[in-house]
Order: sequence, then C-alpha cells, then structure tokens
Amino acid sequence: MLKKILIANRGEIAVRIVRACAEMNIRSVAIYTEPDRYSLHVKRADEAYYLGEDPLAGYLDPRRIVNLAVETGCDAIHPGYGFLSENSEFARICAERGVTFIGPKSDVIAKMGDKTAARASMIAAGVPVTPGTEGNLADLDEALSVADEIGYPIMLKATSGGGGRGIRRCDNAAELKAQYPRVISEATKAFGSAEVFMEKCIVDPKHIEVQVLADSQGNAIHLYERDCSIQRRNQKLIEIAPSPSLTPEQRNYVGELAVRAAKAVGYENAGTVEFLVTGNEIYFMEMNTRVQVEHTISEQITGVDIVREQIRVASGLPLSYRQEDISYRGFALQFRINAEDPKNNFLPSFGRITRYYAPGGPGVRTDTAIYTGYTIPPYFDSMCLKLIVWALNWEDALDRGARALSDMRVQGVKTTARYYQEILQDPDFRSGEFNTSFVPNHPELQNYSEKRDPSEIALAIAAAIAAHAGV
Amino acid sequence: MLKKILIANRGEIAVRIVRACAEMNIRSVAIYTEPDRYSLHVKRADEAYYLGEDPLAGYLDPRRIVNLAVETGCDAIHPGYGFLSENSEFARICAERGVTFIGPKSDVIAKMGDKTAARASMIAAGVPVTPGTEGNLADLDEALSVADEIGYPIMLKATSGGGGRGIRRCDNAAELKAQYPRVISEATKAFGSAEVFMEKCIVDPKHIEVQVLADSQGNAIHLYERDCSIQRRNQKLIEIAPSPSLTPEQRNYVGELAVRAAKAVGYENAGTVEFLVTGNEIYFMEMNTRVQVEHTISEQITGVDIVREQIRVASGLPLSYRQEDISYRGFALQFRINAEDPKNNFLPSFGRITRYYAPGGPGVRTDTAIYTGYTIPPYFDSMCLKLIVWALNWEDALDRGARALSDMRVQGVKTTARYYQEILQDPDFRSGEFNTSFVPNHPELQNYSEKRDPSEIALAIAAAIAAHAGV
Repeated sequence: MLKKILIANRGEIAVRIVRACAEMNIRSVAIYTEPDRYSLHVKRADEAYYLGEDPLAGYLDPRRIVNLAVETGCDAIHPGYGFLSENSEFARICAERGVTFIGPKSDVIAKMGDKTAARASMIAAGVPVTPGTEGNLADLDEALSVADEIGYPIMLKATSGGGGRGIRRCDNAAELKAQYPRVISEATKAFGSAEVFMEKCIVDPKHIEVQVLADSQGNAIHLYERDCSIQRRNQKLIEIAPSPSLTPEQRNYVGELAVRAAKAVGYENAGTVEFLVTGNEIYFMEMNTRVQVEHTISEQITGVDIVREQIRVASGLPLSYRQEDISYRGFALQFRINAEDPKNNFLPSFGRITRYYAPGGPGVRTDTAIYTGYTIPPYFDSMCLKLIVWALNWEDALDRGARALSDMRVQGVKTTARYYQEILQDPDFRSGEFNTSFVPNHPELQNYSEKRDPSEIALAIAAAIAAHAGV
Repeated sequence: MLKKILIANRGEIAVRIVRACAEMNIRSVAIYTEPDRYSLHVKRADEAYYLGEDPLAGYLDPRRIVNLAVETGCDAIHPGYGFLSENSEFARICAERGVTFIGPKSDVIAKMGDKTAARASMIAAGVPVTPGTEGNLADLDEALSVADEIGYPIMLKATSGGGGRGIRRCDNAAELKAQYPRVISEATKAFGSAEVFMEKCIVDPKHIEVQVLADSQGNAIHLYERDCSIQRRNQKLIEIAPSPSLTPEQRNYVGELAVRAAKAVGYENAGTVEFLVTGNEIYFMEMNTRVQVEHTISEQITGVDIVREQIRVASGLPLSYRQEDISYRGFALQFRINAEDPKNNFLPSFGRITRYYAPGGPGVRTDTAIYTGYTIPPYFDSMCLKLIVWALNWEDALDRGARALSDMRVQGVKTTARYYQEILQDPDFRSGEFNTSFVPNHPELQNYSEKRDPSEIALAIAAAIAAHAGV
C-alpha cells in the first residue's frame, strides 16, 4: 500500500483526498500558493509546501510538483480534478521519476484526450458514437460532404478541445462555411492544434455518465450512472444518481458500455464515460480520465469509497469489489454551491465567508474547503461547496435537498443555493424527465425573491454599529 | 397527513424533528425556556414559544404544553426522547384534548413503563425474559426463596424504575438482606412506589436493542439491531448498527422477537426493544416507547427515515415498508460527543463553543444543536453532538470514525471525542467482541495525552491579546 501521497490540487477535492488518506493511514502532503495560505486542505494535510505568490503557477507546474514529491519522500501523487489531472505529460514525468500517478497510464490519458482517437477506439470496441467523421477533417469540402451525409445540425469540434471550448453548432451549410475557419483558428490558439472533426448534433440530449473503476489486473466495474443534464453553459449544476428517467435495461446497457469502453483502452483507476442519451439512442461522448466533481453521488448510492479505491488500485491491489458486489440504493443529488449571483447573470461573488453553517441530519453530506472566516480567492473556480443529499426514493430526496439547502448557511457571498430551491420545486425537474435544455428553457427560475435570514440581518447591523463606533 | 407539530423537546432531537417536518412540508413549533433563547431548535422551527425563566419547568409541564399546542393550532405533539416522552399521562392529556401524540397509546406507555407488567406481557407472548419473579415481591422471605431458586447473582429492581436507578446487584443472601430495604426506600422516594421485583443478574452481557416501527393497521416491522454495549455507568457512549458480533441467525431471531413483543402489546409508532445477550442466550430487558438517541444508526444502515415514519403512522397512514422491503448495508457507529472531561472523571464541561467545525466527506453525519458562539447551558444533558459514521465494512467504519473525530472541531469545552479515538484503536473494540464490561475494564483508555490543535492555541493567544488590549 502507498505510504505518502502528494495532493496536486486545492480546495474541496484536496480535502477529500486528505480524508481518504487519513482513513487509510497514509500520510498526506498538500501544496499551496499564496491565496491558499489559510485553506482547509493546508490545515488538514499532514504536511504542506508553499509554491509561491502566483495563484496558479504552482498548481500547474508538473516538474516542480514531481520534484517536490520526490524530495518529500512521497511515493504517489493524486491529481484530483482540473489542473494537471488530465495532463498526460504530468503522468509521464511521474512514471519517469518513479512516483505513482494515481490515475490511468500516460498513454491512455493522451488517447482519451484526443477526441478522434477516442472515437476510433470506441468504434473499434463496438461502443456507439454519434454519427460523424472517423478521423479529422481534411478541409471544408470534406466537412460539407460529411454534413450532407449525416444531416444538420452538426457539431464542429476541436480534436484537442475540452471544457466546452472549441465547439460550434452549425444548422446549415452556410453556417458550416462561416464557422469552419473560426473553429480552426480557436483550436489553434487555445489548444495548439488545428485539427477538427465533425459529429451529428444531438439536440437536447440527456447527459448520462457512468463511473468506472479498473485495476491493474484487468478487472473493470461500473458504479452505475449519473444524470448531469442540469447544466448552464456546459457547467454542471445539479447531478443525480442514478438517473431518474433511465429504464433498468438502459441502466444496465449503459453500465456495460462503459466497462467495455474502459477495457478497450486498458484503463486503470477511476474514470467516467460520458454519453448523450436521446429517446432510445445512447452515444459515447467522451471519457474523463480522473476522479470527477460528482463522484460523491455514486458513493452515496453504492457505498463504495471511490478515492479509497483509486489509492488501492494505484498501490497495485485488485479492486475491492466485483460487479456483482455492487448494488445501488435510493437517489443522491449533488448541488454545486457556487459563489455566484444567479440574479446577476451568475456573476462570481468572491470574498469573506462571514458565517458557514453545515447542514446536518439524515442523508446529508457536505464536501467543502470553506469555513467561517475563510476568504474565497478570485483566482479559482467559483464552486465553494458540494451539498449532497440522499434518500430511499426520488420524491424524498428532492424534499431532503430543499430542507438541507435551507438548513445551510453560507453568508458573506452570493451563492446558487437559493436558485436550486427554485429548480427543486419545478414540475419538469420533479418529474425526472428533463434534459440539457432544462436550464436555458427555465430562465424564470432565476426570478426568485431573496428572503434574508434574520441572523444575517443582525450580523449586518452589528457590523454597521462596529464600523460606526470605529472598533 | 398532520399539518402542524409542536415539538415538546429541545436540542438536537428538536432540530431533528424540525428537519423531518421541513422535508414533509409540515409546520414546526418549538418551545423554549430562558437558557434556550438562542438554541438552534428555536432558530430553525417555523414558530417558537417561550415557556419561562425556569430552565426545566416549561419542558416538563404536560398541561401547559398541550394547551399551547391547542392554542397555536397544532394537530400533533412530538415528544422526542427524555422529558415527557414516556409519560403516559402526557399522552392521555393529548388524546383528551384531541391532539395527536406522536408515539404509542397512553396505556401501552404505562404498561411498558411498569417493568413487572412488561415482563408478564413478554412471558405471555413467548418472548424470553431473564429468570426471576413474574410479579412483584411480597417480602424479603419471598426474595430469598426466589434467589435460591434462580441462583446468585441477582438484581433487585424497582418496578417503576428507569434510567439505571432503583437497581441493586446482590451476590449472596447477606447482600440481598442488606439491599432489600434500601431498594424499597429508594423506589419509594424516586418513583413513588415501593414495588420491587427480582431478576437473575446476567453478568457482562451485550446490550442489543432492536428498532421497531408499527402502524395503526396492525403492521409491525423491525430495522435490525443496535449494539449499545459501550456504556459508562449505564450511559451509552458509542452505538453500533448492526452488531458486529451477532450471527445472521441471532440477528433474525432478535428482530423477530422484537416484532412479536411490539405486536403483543398493540404497539404503534417507533419503539425500541432492549435485550441482554450472553453467549447464545437472549433475554428481553425493556421496551423504550419513544424515538431513541441512537435511532440515527438504524437510519444509516437501512435508509429508512424513522422520524418521518413516526409522523406518517401518527397521521394514520400505514408504514411505508413491509419487512421484506427492509435491508441493511454496511456498519454505522454513533459517537455521543458529550461536553465532559474524560480525564477528570467525566466532569461536565459547560460553556461557550468558541469554534464548531462540522466534519464532512463520505459516510459522515452530524446531529447537533451547537454552533460557533453557542453556550451550552448547565441545566440539561451533557451530550452536545452526535457524530455518525457509516462504511460498507466494519474496519472501514472504524477508520472513518477516527478520521471524522479528528476532522471535527468543538472548541471552548472539553469533550469525549479524544477518548473515543482511544476506544477506536483498542484491539478488543476493533474485534467486535465486547460487552458492557468494556468501559470499566479499560480505564487505561482515559490516559491519553492531549494534543492541542494549533488553531486552538492561536485562538487562545488572540483572546489573551484582546483581553490585554482591553478590547
């Protein structure tokens, strides 16, 4: 078993990994830059190392991080999500220096990061992909001819793209002619590669993704699916496990597809296979080769500790479970509490948390790095807390979510919590029959009236009195 | 369904009930006395009513509470645990005034509160009880003769006793002669009844209790058992579900016994049937006719929301589950975090919580009424927080417990948290093979060294500077 792990990340996912290490009697090492000096991951890790004033550079420097791991006697690095987690070069340097990268092998990261290569692997493995080009497009003429064949609307995508960038929808030939050079230009600037490919545009799909776990002995299992259709501009807001709208047959089918996909590329460690689902059609979209923000809800329904399994398989141990050991129970929802103002176009709202009160009671889990007095720095993601609720059935889980959101206090910044209360009351959401068009099609849910908590008003008055008194 | 519930309790259980009401769209009404003016149950309930300066009187006045319920339009009262929860007169007044008492009928409370009547009911229902008298003892001569028959050691018990009072162990006839008048005197003073009975003393038993739920249609189910053997002077410290040492056959047997016991007395609502287990012998001890402090761990392993079911069946609805719908998964432990100093004979440590940080992450639940800045009043129970952890297997649950205890911060008062860390490392505890002698037999576990949290030291320094500066 690994003995000491450097966590190449920050915030809640770094805290999550520290906790897994603590439960496994593994020493944890945090890294931090200036704005994270008082971050919880620094306080909770066994050791912490400062990587300079620049907010981001320290978290994005593969060689420096691997050097630090070697110098501090770490036998492994956990990359979390974001930052260097899907950087195949980082995994390669780790291997080169004899440090275990807690994730798949470098070449698998590279293959799944190259979207046309990933598509080709999936086609070879018999996993359905959206109709489109098998490889990259040679030129506009080929693009027009493929588009005619598969039918509009189509998506032009940068082969090396990600995070919703380098993607354009074209509804007809004129739009394709206009967008083609733009996507190439954007791809070249953003990803350093002019390669683009084309897929049929699946209109208003459900975003269904499957959590997979695989070990170095060739075993691979799935932990059922998550429905992440509640998105705004490709950013997930509320995730649900399992999907409230898949049939048991679809559930098993998508699970089997994900395991087949993982096995086809020799996958090791935790990963997520994302699909677009529309009616009875299920298409592979992409594979995320890391632990995901929403891994929590798969943990809630299956009971499996995904980060623990990541560490176990990275240690060379087999998975703790066979597929037949895995069952799911109830429904879990994760609310990404972002420091943003939904009434002001989701403008980020950074600053000091004057009061944080964690909701409690049955079926409630929080994963966060905030605390009372913590200042959310403006340099990173605006997600400040993950609120996860669970109940035996769908309606109870929704009601528990509403209760936990109103039980929680995150004061001093605006958050998306109140907006999620509106979503939870929406009949389309409650029916379970929604897709990725839910958020854009329900702008009225942002028109809530803000009821201030009386204790928040009291705090504001106290602050005003103190300011006036010159304390 | 009930529409508005008065919660005749305080602290964490009142908050627990407010949360259930919020999830069921039921209006909640809190009551409070002076020391509870800033209590969380008052803040979180929809309405709150002040019952005077005396810390306790308001919580213990059945007529006043029922009057308030009627005046404020409540259709039900939830008594929680302690206070009036097992007061049959309170339930009777509720019924008289047309207010639903969320618990069993008054006569069932009375019957199970009378220990010889409860024993007689169990014997009639074929539930094994410890060898002893069927009714009350007539005099010392009968006591000596019964003791000879069943064999020493024996327990002399006050028929109306409870909470570990009015009970004496006698190892021989001389002790019985000496203790007999003392127990009668104690019973008369404490419970207003001179009636006593005798049971064989089960030496070093396991304390195993079964959660039952019953509705007004005659359905009764169990939610498996809890092992509450980790006790100090009859006060439970750590509770576990399911028991790590029962065989599956014992588990099913004890569950069936509990359902039989509940049905035999026409039980309705949530209740707990307590057993003493030694080797292969299982004996009925008593039935608690209310929700219990440790109901949380049965919720964690079965997924059933016990307070919700209490409210449903009190509304006249059938149980949401049949026995075959109930399964258990993993292990849950509850740590009662008491404001006490284990190194100073568990002396209560009341005062202001200078900092409370709730532990989070996978498999962690907290039920508490404390918050940063809250002052624990000296008039009530010293339990200030329930930390509940869950994991798929026993060893992982223990490690998660240790992690969550170290993750949590309750500063400003001494607590039992650090002591529980010692228990979690003890090989006898980890083996799962312990009984009620564990705490008295392991006094060395109180000899831990206190490692102060660096942030706690910083806070103390800041407070000292502030005091010096006269701020």
